[in-house]
Amino acid sequence: MGDGAPPSAFDADTAVEPLGDGRYRGEVTPRWDVIGGAPNGGYLVGLLLRAVAAELPAPDVLTVTAHYLDRVEHGEVTVEVEPQRTGRRHDTARARLLQAGTPRILLTATFGYLDDAEGPTAIAEPRLEVPELDECLATPPEIEVPEVLRRFDLRHDPACVGWAVGEPTGEGWMAGWIRFADGRSFDPLSLPVATDAFAPAVLNLLERIVWVPTLELTVQVRARPRTDWLRAGFRTRYLIDGYLEEDGEVRDADGNLVALSRQLALARLP
Amino acid sequence: MGDGAPPSAFDADTAVEPLGDGRYRGEVTPRWDVIGGAPNGGYLVGLLLRAVAAELPAPDVLTVTAHYLDRVEHGEVTVEVEPQRTGRRHDTARARLLQAGTPRILLTATFGYLDDAEGPTAIAEPRLEVPELDECLATPPEIEVPEVLRRFDLRHDPACVGWAVGEPTGEGWMAGWIRFADGRSFDPLSLPVATDAFAPAVLNLLERIVWVPTLELTVQVRARPRTDWLRAGFRTRYLIDGYLEEDGEVRDADGNLVALSRQLALARLP
Repeated sequence: MGDGAPPSAFDADTAVEPLGDGRYRGEVTPRWDVIGGAPNGGYLVGLLLRAVAAELPAPDVLTVTAHYLDRVEHGEVTVEVEPQRTGRRHDTARARLLQAGTPRILLTATFGYLDDAEGPTAIAEPRLEVPELDECLATPPEIEVPEVLRRFDLRHDPACVGWAVGEPTGEGWMAGWIRFADGRSFDPLSLPVATDAFAPAVLNLLERIVWVPTLELTVQVRARPRTDWLRAGFRTRYLIDGYLEEDGEVRDADGNLVALSRQLALARLP
Repeated sequence: MGDGAPPSAFDADTAVEPLGDGRYRGEVTPRWDVIGGAPNGGYLVGLLLRAVAAELPAPDVLTVTAHYLDRVEHGEVTVEVEPQRTGRRHDTARARLLQAGTPRILLTATFGYLDDAEGPTAIAEPRLEVPELDECLATPPEIEVPEVLRRFDLRHDPACVGWAVGEPTGEGWMAGWIRFADGRSFDPLSLPVATDAFAPAVLNLLERIVWVPTLELTVQVRARPRTDWLRAGFRTRYLIDGYLEEDGEVRDADGNLVALSRQLALARLP
């Protein structure tokens, strides 16, 4: 951003201002709203992580867990960060997002040094079953999308779009490609939002549309993406008594794993 | 325990004594040591959850995340619990385990009401590829096992034991059956230890033995087990520069999903 270019929407809307003693002020904008007017959970994790990153020596989030306690409204929020340990390879902090004096999100994150990671590599699962980018479909312009989807260029696996016309696949799988619409590249801080931007995979498991509020989201960042486009797939295998997991896998266009995500969410009938 | 029977090892060793203001005193025993003399991470989660459960109205842990900051030694520990929100269906708290004045484990947990959960059910993946109990193998008595394994009756999928004789499968899969050795039944509070008791799945991915310290463990409890024996499988797909995920799936003997786990761990050469 040193070249005078305006910051990306993500950088602008996750910016935090230090208030001292590990406290930060942020502003939740409507630009990341999902259906129903609530801010996207991955965007809010990004805002919290901006504050955490400012308090820890290590540069890269490796694993982050957020518990969503209560709805976050547009407007001012406070983030409180408490570093808990700094070490040679890993630093850990916990944080809270507060609004109107009450905690809305709890977050714990361990940061490290992605570029200096050293150790054995072995990969057992090279396949991520998502068609090539040019075989995937943009959302038709006549379809009204929630605000958060305007922040991305999203391409849908054609095998996964049936839910939108009342024909879910029954397989609990949602896949496609994603990049930021304004040209920003994904990095560790913004990978959580990539894991929370697609339509819920449960829409391809159930025969009806449900609202899917997240209780808890955990994202492991495994590498820095080398491409702007990311290939992503999300799977829900177990919807039990209204609770479901959604497991996400995100790779860059070169095929490198960049993030794994899992959330515990509710499937609520509208 | 009202009938005068001695408490199970798990209940005795996770017991905490309230000190007031959300603080609890516990005692880490050597009975749950893994190789190297460190206490099993799932056992420590159980101890923390005992303190959290005492502070929240809802009875059942639904999702819990622990970040392991530093080694926990045998002996006295303090657990600090801070409830953050109590609601109609879900309560959330964060907690820390401290020893010698420094935080060793951070934990966040959301509790709820497993028996009153209501909502749609749909399951996309009915298979968990673990052989029947009578086809699995107990550890031969001549093999010396770490102390924690004496707390369980563990039976190994015969297809997964090759790593122990220098013949890993290369598939990153470890599976078998588990019950407590002393007859205790698994419940939501003790399911995390069931997800952390088997040998690491990465031992069936790499050609060499590694030490696998956990950085972060998340467990979703999805149902109360109806049987003492649990069927479990663990998979590591991506070991990259010394970091790996391990995904666990645990079912009761009736085939019902009871827990999903995921950890971020290191693979360290000895």
